[in-house]
Amino acid sequence: MALHAKPLQLNTADAGFEAAFAARLHWSADTDAAIEQRVADILADVQKRGDAAVLEYTQRFDGLQAPDVKALEITQAELKAALDSLPAAQREALQAAAARVRKYHEAQKKASGESWSYRDEDGTLLGQKVTPLDRVGIYVPGGKAAYPSSVLMNAIPAHVAGVQDIIMVVPTPVRGSVATGGSGEAAVSSRGERNELVLAAAYVAGVTRAFTVGGAQAVGALAYGTATIPKVDKITGPGNAYVASAKKRVFGTVGIDMIAGPSEILVLADGSTPAEWVAMDLFSQAEHDELAQSILLCPDAAYIAEVQAAIDRLLPTMPRRKIIAKSLNDRGALILTRSMEEACAISNRIAPEHLEVSSSEPHRWEPLLRHAGAIFLGAFTSESLGDYCAGPNHVLPTSGTARFSSPLGVYDFQKRSSLIEVSEAGAQPLGRIAAELAYGEGLQAHARAAELRLNPVPPMREPT
Amino acid sequence: MALHAKPLQLNTADAGFEAAFAARLHWSADTDAAIEQRVADILADVQKRGDAAVLEYTQRFDGLQAPDVKALEITQAELKAALDSLPAAQREALQAAAARVRKYHEAQKKASGESWSYRDEDGTLLGQKVTPLDRVGIYVPGGKAAYPSSVLMNAIPAHVAGVQDIIMVVPTPVRGSVATGGSGEAAVSSRGERNELVLAAAYVAGVTRAFTVGGAQAVGALAYGTATIPKVDKITGPGNAYVASAKKRVFGTVGIDMIAGPSEILVLADGSTPAEWVAMDLFSQAEHDELAQSILLCPDAAYIAEVQAAIDRLLPTMPRRKIIAKSLNDRGALILTRSMEEACAISNRIAPEHLEVSSSEPHRWEPLLRHAGAIFLGAFTSESLGDYCAGPNHVLPTSGTARFSSPLGVYDFQKRSSLIEVSEAGAQPLGRIAAELAYGEGLQAHARAAELRLNPVPPMREPT
Repeated sequence: MALHAKPLQLNTADAGFEAAFAARLHWSADTDAAIEQRVADILADVQKRGDAAVLEYTQRFDGLQAPDVKALEITQAELKAALDSLPAAQREALQAAAARVRKYHEAQKKASGESWSYRDEDGTLLGQKVTPLDRVGIYVPGGKAAYPSSVLMNAIPAHVAGVQDIIMVVPTPVRGSVATGGSGEAAVSSRGERNELVLAAAYVAGVTRAFTVGGAQAVGALAYGTATIPKVDKITGPGNAYVASAKKRVFGTVGIDMIAGPSEILVLADGSTPAEWVAMDLFSQAEHDELAQSILLCPDAAYIAEVQAAIDRLLPTMPRRKIIAKSLNDRGALILTRSMEEACAISNRIAPEHLEVSSSEPHRWEPLLRHAGAIFLGAFTSESLGDYCAGPNHVLPTSGTARFSSPLGVYDFQKRSSLIEVSEAGAQPLGRIAAELAYGEGLQAHARAAELRLNPVPPMREPT
Repeated sequence: MALHAKPLQLNTADAGFEAAFAARLHWSADTDAAIEQRVADILADVQKRGDAAVLEYTQRFDGLQAPDVKALEITQAELKAALDSLPAAQREALQAAAARVRKYHEAQKKASGESWSYRDEDGTLLGQKVTPLDRVGIYVPGGKAAYPSSVLMNAIPAHVAGVQDIIMVVPTPVRGSVATGGSGEAAVSSRGERNELVLAAAYVAGVTRAFTVGGAQAVGALAYGTATIPKVDKITGPGNAYVASAKKRVFGTVGIDMIAGPSEILVLADGSTPAEWVAMDLFSQAEHDELAQSILLCPDAAYIAEVQAAIDRLLPTMPRRKIIAKSLNDRGALILTRSMEEACAISNRIAPEHLEVSSSEPHRWEPLLRHAGAIFLGAFTSESLGDYCAGPNHVLPTSGTARFSSPLGVYDFQKRSSLIEVSEAGAQPLGRIAAELAYGEGLQAHARAAELRLNPVPPMREPT
């Protein structure tokens, strides 16, 4: 039987729309109690036994044999050699993408990541000092989801923020060994499968040190530190269920970025973009994995039919057509709306990770779009340009979390300290206000600390 | 026996310093499996039964009887009446504090929370759109930790960010009833204990709606929404172990702020500040609760003795002296350092929530201080001025998390969307770079989506 890809067709004017729409959007991260328990055990073991535990799990899960964790470190010379070994076109593309991502994040730092302060009339100084984190860990998946572009997108903002130590961990499982975090017998070797493009990206992005470890054991090593792998302040980067569970568990000991769900694209189309372009954009999300979600919102029924025809025509040409078809059949949707305005309103309900405004007048609709990880304006702005090299980060909030969270950025690798310097003159009115409120809250030491700076110092009030 | 407060005295030159210092700093949030299970059950029940579950738990835990959840809402008129009912001095202090907090957060928004963009030479637009969250929930504890200042510190940044709906929840347990989240028999009444200063603060800070519910059931109501209590995008504010556990559990469905540990102050002193001022600043932290931590770092042994003498002299005058004494005896420390430089280095290891630089040259030391929630510069800047009214937020990272996180701010109530508009000219070089990298990652649909925008469109490459 021929492969087909028929996203669910919906019409906002239909009575059953709301229910069908909600069902199609539904996704929930199942927490697997068995995985959680195993991850808790691995983390406790790494915290207790350090390097020895990391070595053992790396051998067991990745089939990688090494005399010590030091032997799992990839040197800067090896990273550079990986870059040098690339075909020229690939090397230049990587460097060009890195340069654009760096430029964008430098602008981001300038616009929203600098220290600031002001002085009151009485000389009191108020502000915030913005400083980089000291050391961060970047988790890079091995195997089929090894994306060098993700190395750039995680490491460059950290580098631009001014982070001194950027520690990358990337599993390099031995071919024929089980997946990281799995169990069972593994082929054991002293050399795992390294992805040269990933190592080259690490060199270009300014990674300081790199270790070929992965899974919960790598997250534990970064969170607690071992004799060889330094403890970091924050861990970012995507991973499988074991990695996600481990990141959640160490949150608080270290910072983490968001836990990502399946990737999504929403295309808002007015019918002015070639239908094949939109079809290919929907494919580009669907090809990630079967849970990825591609949705088209459009007020023009004839155009929706054109896009479906383009899907039918283009699907057989795609090497990853099986994944694309399953994703589009199970989770995709082509939704006919009453208007572009309604399409914008529905988009806000979805709060998509990627939002393409495939319209001849994108700036008419952009102000109506309140929630999205990234907004791609106009027909020439395919999501894939943003994924690789336009400049903005491709690590974006998924599953509707764009309602309350943001793209990965320089700000994720900085923290802020409030600065307060109260002058003697300023301490007089402020001290009276603070004391009044502190007595009201029953915190007399707070009140007295303020009052001791008053001239003259008033008598202490009795507690009420 | 007379009450005494003798913080542990340490000397960085002693052989045993490192071990004693580490032991004194140690604190860990015990996760109580029984609390976690009960919270999970309450959340599931609120998600399933909505208002009915909220009503039941409010009666059971707070002893509060109501016909429906609507009856638990506090109207704007009631909030305003609370403000009007305050003594003039208290009302004016509250309004003055709110005005200063608002001014500071407006400066913060201007400095780091505005949208920005730039155009490349080829016309490609890149930037970020910064928008407020639609709706947030603010948890305000009832009972002994009911702090109106915390209402200001949570609600004002949300209001300045532009959040339309600020929903406050505050338990009002009936006197004689059990604590929120507890169990057992409760006195049941239709009117719980309301804190007028908290309600007045809500009015001043711009809270939109308020409900007298608390505990895990309030967190659940805000995270999932009920027929009466609207679903929010983010929940901030402190609470007991039940509230903290519930916030962690709903994280991902909604955003949350950090889970706070015990409050801490670190005073870096060069001996130039009156010893009584420093002693009172240490008290002001210690009076919060017995787990609070007050530490003095100073290179002058005679000054440390003066501070201890001031502690001895002042302690009997403090109404909360029992809590202060226990906190200082169990968790406090007076540490003699070799120099101010060493004191700064130790401060960076602690990454304190509150850091007072009680020195005649605070700007000499400030650049050496890399990790702290808030830095209070100079003798007149008591922490308590910052707690109430200097302007900066008093919700700060605790337990060393200032290494990677920041004070609560306007940025916590905003989110960012990347903006990308690639021109036709820009799509040519970008498309070639993206396609090269996408083919390298084995994502052919990504490559083709970029290539379809090229002129002419190149032939599709075979997968490698």
